[in-house]
Amino acid sequence: MDTVAKLSEYTKECDYEMRVIGVPKTIDNDLVVTDHTPGFASAAKYIATTVTECIRDCAVYKTKAVTVIEIMGRDAGWLTASAGIPRAFGGETPDLIYLPERAFNKEEFFEDLRALLDKKPNVVVAVSEGIRFADGTYVCEGFGIASTDVFGHKQLSGTGKALEYAIKAELGCKVRSVELNIVQRCASHIASRVDIEESVRVGRTAIKAASDGVTRQMMTIERVSTEPYWVEISHRDVSEIANKVKHVPAEFINERGNHITDECARYLLPLIRGELDVKYENGIPKHITI
Amino acid sequence: MDTVAKLSEYTKECDYEMRVIGVPKTIDNDLVVTDHTPGFASAAKYIATTVTECIRDCAVYKTKAVTVIEIMGRDAGWLTASAGIPRAFGGETPDLIYLPERAFNKEEFFEDLRALLDKKPNVVVAVSEGIRFADGTYVCEGFGIASTDVFGHKQLSGTGKALEYAIKAELGCKVRSVELNIVQRCASHIASRVDIEESVRVGRTAIKAASDGVTRQMMTIERVSTEPYWVEISHRDVSEIANKVKHVPAEFINERGNHITDECARYLLPLIRGELDVKYENGIPKHITI
Repeated sequence: MDTVAKLSEYTKECDYEMRVIGVPKTIDNDLVVTDHTPGFASAAKYIATTVTECIRDCAVYKTKAVTVIEIMGRDAGWLTASAGIPRAFGGETPDLIYLPERAFNKEEFFEDLRALLDKKPNVVVAVSEGIRFADGTYVCEGFGIASTDVFGHKQLSGTGKALEYAIKAELGCKVRSVELNIVQRCASHIASRVDIEESVRVGRTAIKAASDGVTRQMMTIERVSTEPYWVEISHRDVSEIANKVKHVPAEFINERGNHITDECARYLLPLIRGELDVKYENGIPKHITI
Repeated sequence: MDTVAKLSEYTKECDYEMRVIGVPKTIDNDLVVTDHTPGFASAAKYIATTVTECIRDCAVYKTKAVTVIEIMGRDAGWLTASAGIPRAFGGETPDLIYLPERAFNKEEFFEDLRALLDKKPNVVVAVSEGIRFADGTYVCEGFGIASTDVFGHKQLSGTGKALEYAIKAELGCKVRSVELNIVQRCASHIASRVDIEESVRVGRTAIKAASDGVTRQMMTIERVSTEPYWVEISHRDVSEIANKVKHVPAEFINERGNHITDECARYLLPLIRGELDVKYENGIPKHITI
């Protein structure tokens, strides 16, 4: 969006009529002004589905165990928050959810884990890759986990891996970490219908706006109502958006900072509703390459 | 299946009439005698789908990069071989596929990677977690990658991670590793219809066999024909099966040991055909708990 602003100014200076419109797409959902960004809802649907499946998998075993699921999001916790969507309808969610918007408190974390393991054999924890301690150190650095490669170069392990080792050392129980990695951004076989339909509307409205003379704007999705879910596609000046990050707001995180609120789950739920009629060929979804 | 044998013998010794029938289920597909095992085909479908999506994701970037995808399978490479199924219909597969059935040759691996990176910017490699060097050392141990936790305890990294660091050190390009982890065994939203239908048939036939007096047997799936795909459900003495491992046969791996053969892909393809009509509720697949 910063490029949209610069390009618009440059063409204006040159007195060259070119209309520049930013069409957002990011699974991170970290752009301000717009209610959410195209792409986010499909990743959220994948995450809610996959985490639910992992919870079912873990529930099979009776041995005390902790499973840590690392989800993308360096600065904004939207994707990780999506693991908690089933709260909205009384479904199963991870026992603990940590977002980068709140400082990660190691003592409270182990306290909560111990209390949970006293009550049930399997505990599932969802964490954003970008969670940090109160002093700003990333959890993936701050637990003192160091990997060295064949040349002795230090390699940074992931947040999930760092927590896996730390929990193992602290509680001594079985611990596993799962990193959803790039799969969460490319699992098109389980895209959200709301996401795909809105993306098409955003693209079409952008073309229309440009041909109407609009420039230096970013397309936005404005939420009119949550139940029933209703949005309108509009656009806003890019200077309102460029270089800003939309964080998960305080009221979407519980007091202890270890889960999302019902309000957050209800807000996210309509985005993951609806499926596409995926075309399979030879047992796998057909991709179209242009 | 070893337990089925022991239990059958014990009840026979005690002169207690209890019929014991082994009903197999393992995504690893490593049981002998049966053509394949219930569960395998659904994991294979998930792997073929997800790896195809990862290949699409990687193709977006023009910077030279290697993506290593680690797939389950300590001793048998069936799951990793599934990443190559699209060969059967001229679809995209990882550039390189390594199974535990063949010794991993580091020099040839780097040679193949270099040749591929000369021709294209993105190389995707699928590896079984259990691949070993010719001397029997696991690749995850043999590359000299050591992680130490907060107490200085050495932790073994995964095979994908070990290869990631090794490729980075050797080639200096961008490298990423993705571990499909437990998701590949619990992604029921993309189960294979063939798998689910066969599993039901196997269960039903087992009950029928037991009530007919059969004991000390394991249920088997016998392939009658590949095209058209046709199987019959039968059973065989567990002593033929217990404590044996079914490896991917030599003719299913190419000469260089870095991919599967067309024959392997054609053999696996019918297993992943067909989808279930997954019931979604509130945007995620509905799980039934009993």
